[in-house]
Amino acid sequence: MTEAQWQPALSLLTEIVSMPNDAVFPEQIEVNIQWCEDIFEDRGWSVERLETAGIPLLLVEKTQAAATKTALFYFHVDGQAVDISKWDQPDAYVPVLKAQNESGNWEPIAIEKLQSEYDPEWRIFARSSSDDKGPLAMFISGWDALAEAGLAPDYSIKIILDFEEEQGSPRLPAAVVEYKEKLKADLMLIMDGPRHTSNEPTLSYGARGIADMTLTTYGPKVPQHSGHYGNYSPNPALLLSQLLASMKDADGRIVIPGYYDDITFTDAEREIFSKVPDNEPAVQKRLGIGRTDKVGETYQESINYPSLNIRGLNSGYTGTQATTIIPATAVAELDIRLVPESDPNRLFELIEDHINAQGFHIVSEDPTDEERMNYPKLVKMEKSVSYQAFRTPMDSDAGAWLRKAMNRAFGKDPVQIRISGGSIPISPFVDALGIPAITIPTVNADNNQHSPNENLRLGNYKEGIQAIMSVLTQPMY
Amino acid sequence: MTEAQWQPALSLLTEIVSMPNDAVFPEQIEVNIQWCEDIFEDRGWSVERLETAGIPLLLVEKTQAAATKTALFYFHVDGQAVDISKWDQPDAYVPVLKAQNESGNWEPIAIEKLQSEYDPEWRIFARSSSDDKGPLAMFISGWDALAEAGLAPDYSIKIILDFEEEQGSPRLPAAVVEYKEKLKADLMLIMDGPRHTSNEPTLSYGARGIADMTLTTYGPKVPQHSGHYGNYSPNPALLLSQLLASMKDADGRIVIPGYYDDITFTDAEREIFSKVPDNEPAVQKRLGIGRTDKVGETYQESINYPSLNIRGLNSGYTGTQATTIIPATAVAELDIRLVPESDPNRLFELIEDHINAQGFHIVSEDPTDEERMNYPKLVKMEKSVSYQAFRTPMDSDAGAWLRKAMNRAFGKDPVQIRISGGSIPISPFVDALGIPAITIPTVNADNNQHSPNENLRLGNYKEGIQAIMSVLTQPMY
Repeated sequence: MTEAQWQPALSLLTEIVSMPNDAVFPEQIEVNIQWCEDIFEDRGWSVERLETAGIPLLLVEKTQAAATKTALFYFHVDGQAVDISKWDQPDAYVPVLKAQNESGNWEPIAIEKLQSEYDPEWRIFARSSSDDKGPLAMFISGWDALAEAGLAPDYSIKIILDFEEEQGSPRLPAAVVEYKEKLKADLMLIMDGPRHTSNEPTLSYGARGIADMTLTTYGPKVPQHSGHYGNYSPNPALLLSQLLASMKDADGRIVIPGYYDDITFTDAEREIFSKVPDNEPAVQKRLGIGRTDKVGETYQESINYPSLNIRGLNSGYTGTQATTIIPATAVAELDIRLVPESDPNRLFELIEDHINAQGFHIVSEDPTDEERMNYPKLVKMEKSVSYQAFRTPMDSDAGAWLRKAMNRAFGKDPVQIRISGGSIPISPFVDALGIPAITIPTVNADNNQHSPNENLRLGNYKEGIQAIMSVLTQPMY
Repeated sequence: MTEAQWQPALSLLTEIVSMPNDAVFPEQIEVNIQWCEDIFEDRGWSVERLETAGIPLLLVEKTQAAATKTALFYFHVDGQAVDISKWDQPDAYVPVLKAQNESGNWEPIAIEKLQSEYDPEWRIFARSSSDDKGPLAMFISGWDALAEAGLAPDYSIKIILDFEEEQGSPRLPAAVVEYKEKLKADLMLIMDGPRHTSNEPTLSYGARGIADMTLTTYGPKVPQHSGHYGNYSPNPALLLSQLLASMKDADGRIVIPGYYDDITFTDAEREIFSKVPDNEPAVQKRLGIGRTDKVGETYQESINYPSLNIRGLNSGYTGTQATTIIPATAVAELDIRLVPESDPNRLFELIEDHINAQGFHIVSEDPTDEERMNYPKLVKMEKSVSYQAFRTPMDSDAGAWLRKAMNRAFGKDPVQIRISGGSIPISPFVDALGIPAITIPTVNADNNQHSPNENLRLGNYKEGIQAIMSVLTQPMY
C-alpha cells in the first residue's frame, strides 16, 4: 500500500467515525445510511434500502460480468451508546490520535502528524473505530487501492450493512427471509470483531448467538423502613442473590441440569484449541483477574459452551443515595451466549425448571395482590432470543479458500478460531441462504469495544486493508 | 383540657410547622432555633445554645426549687426534605386541615373550622407535623395548660433540642460527651416516633441502633465484552450474589455464626410480645408479602434481633441501559439494625470471619493490580456505626413510674414495646449520662413520616397533650 493510498484511507477512517451512530436515535442512523449510499454510489455500486418495520438495511452490490460466484459481505455501521463522562476525550465522535507513554497511559498527539509520520502502535480513539466502522473503512480503502491498480475480484460482491447490530439486530432475521432472493450468494464473509489477542491474522469459523433474560424479584409492595420491617418483610435483593447464586458454582460453572448437554470435542478439535496462541496468563493480567471461571480447560474450550452472564443488578439505592429501606424489587439482567448445540428455547426451559426447583413461582407480569399472597417467592422472568449461533466446518471449501488468501497476505497460516465468543447476527443468513459463513477479524483485541475509549491500532487498520485486498484478489474456488 | 386551652394548642401547632426546617439549609434551622429560644424564654425557662462544629443543640431548662430529680426530654426540630411535587398540597410548610371521604381520600376543609368544631379523625397535613414538631407542640401546650392551673412537676426539667436528627445527628455523640455536666439528669424521656399501629397509648423502652456496610466485589478491571469473556472472566455480580446468599437462609435468618448470640427471652418477655396487639395478617396484606422472614416467632420478637438488610444493589446496567458486558464491580449497601446484645464491632468481626470463610480476601480500598492477581476473590468492605441501641428494663423504676402516668391519663395499661425497630440517637445520652431512657410515642403510625403528605391526627395531638400533662404531674419515683 502506497502513501498515496494510505492518506485517503486515514481520512476515510476519521470521517466515518465522526458521525454519531447510536441506533436508539434513528436520526443519527439516517446520516450514516446516506453517507454509505453516497460512498458506494460514487464508486459505481448499486445501492438499495431494504425496508423493515424500523431502521432499514442497506444492500450494496457490484456484479462482475464473468463471475459465477458471489460473496456476501457483512458490516454493521451503528455503534454502542456513549457515556462521555467515562471517556478520556471530550467527544467520542471526534477522533483523537494517541500514543502510549512509558507509564502505559495513552496521550493525545496532534492528528495532523498522520500526514507525515506513521507508527503502527498509534491508535485512533473514537466510538466504532473498531466496532465496526473501522473494518468498513478497510474494505472501501482496499477496494479503492485495487481499483486504482485496475484490479477487480473474479466474483461478484454483495454487501449487507446493518444499522441496528448493537441493539441486537431485532429486524434482521425477518428481513433476511423477506429479501432472501436479493441476498443470494455462495459464501458469506463477515468483517466484524477483533483478531485473536496475539494480534496475529485470524479467521473465525463461527460466532456464539445471543439471548437475554431479565429476572425481577419482589419484596414489599412499596419500599419499607428497614428499622420497622427489617427481619420481617422478605428482601427482594436477598431473594435475587439466592436465586442467582443457585445457578452457578464457585468456579462459575452453570449447575442448571442439562445446560451443557451435547457439547463434546474431538481430539482434532482439541488440537485446534491448543494451536491458538492464547497467552492466558497475560490475558488474566490485563483483565486483572487472579483466576478464571472453570467452564472449559482452556479459554478456547470455554467459549465453545453457552454462557449465563449477569450483566446488570439493581435494587434500592447505592452510594450517596443509599437510604434505610427494604426495596420493593430487585432486578437482574442476564445475557446468554449460545453455541449451535444449545437451542435457546431449550435453555430457557431448563432455567425455568431450575427456578421452580428453587421454590419460586414464575410470572410474566408484575404480580397481582392475590399472587403476592399466594406465592411465598415470586420472580418475573422476561426473555428474548436475538439470534442463534453459527459455525462453519474448518475443512470446508470456503475455509480453504480464505486460508489461502490470508497466507498470501501475511505469509503464514492465520490463527483459527472454531467459534468466537461474541455474537454477530449471521445465523439468519446461514439459515435462510444455506451458505457457509466465515469471519475475517481485523481489529486489535484490546480496542475497548463496547466500553469507553474504544480505539483502533493503526497497524491493524493497515493490515486489515492488506487482508481485504488479498481476499478480493484471491481466485474464487 | 378545656376549649380555652385547646385553641392556643392548635395555633401553636400550625405556627410551629410553618417554619421550613430542612437541616441541609442552616438558615432555615436558625429561624427554628430562635423560635424555640423565644417560646421557652417567654415561659421563664433558661435557654442555652450548645455549640458544635456545625448546627448547635439547644438546651432549655426549668428548675424546681424543691426537686431532687431531673428529667431530660429529647425532641428534634428539623424535618425531612420536601419534594413538593409529590405532596397533595401547594406548600408542605402551610398546614392544611383534611378529612377522609367515603372513598378513603383526604380532602381539605377550611382550617377555620377548627375554631368551632372538633373531630379526632381530622388531620393536619404539614412537614414535621408528626416528626417531630407535633410532639414538641404537645409538650409546650401541656406545660401551658398546667401553668394556667397553677401546677408544676415535682422534678426539674431539661430539654435537649436536636436540629440535625434527619441528617443522622452527626455531631450529637461528641456534644453529649462534651456537655455531659450540663445534661446531667436522672431519666431521659424521648418524645419522637409513632404509637403502636393499633393507635393505642404506647410506651417504648428502647430502639435499635444502626450501622451500615458497603460491599464491593471485583471482576475484570474494566467492564469486558460478555461474548469474549463470558465463561472465562469471573463476574462480580455473581460473586456478590454468592456472598450475600451465604449470609442468610431461605427464611431470611442470618447464618453467620454468632450473629444472634446472647439474645434470649424470658417467658415474661415473650408474654409482653404476645400482649402487643399486632394484627400480623393485616400487616402482611398491606405490605403484599405472602410470608415473612422467620427470625422470630412474632413481629415483636423479630425486631429484638439485629438485622442485616440489603438496602441497595448495583452492578452494570439494567433496563434500557442494559448492555452486553461483564461488569467491573458489583456493590451492595447493607444496613444493620442493632440491639443491645449486638455490639456492632463484634458483628463486623463476625461478618469479616464469615466473608473470609467464603474464600474472599477483604480489602478496605479498591484492590491494587497485585492484590487482584494474588487473591482469587476480593471484596472491599466499608463500614460505619451511627449509634448503638438502647433498652431500658421494663421493670425499672422509670418504667413503673411512666406506666403509672399513662394509666392515669388513659385509664388502662399502654401497649409496651420492648424495643422499637427504627433507630433514634439516644444511646449517646444513655452511655454518657448513665441513665435510663424511655420513649413516649404519641403520633399516629400512618402519619407518612419521611414521605410526602406527612400528617398528624387531631385525636393524637389531643391525647399527646393529655399524656404529657399526666407525666408532668406524676410524682417522681
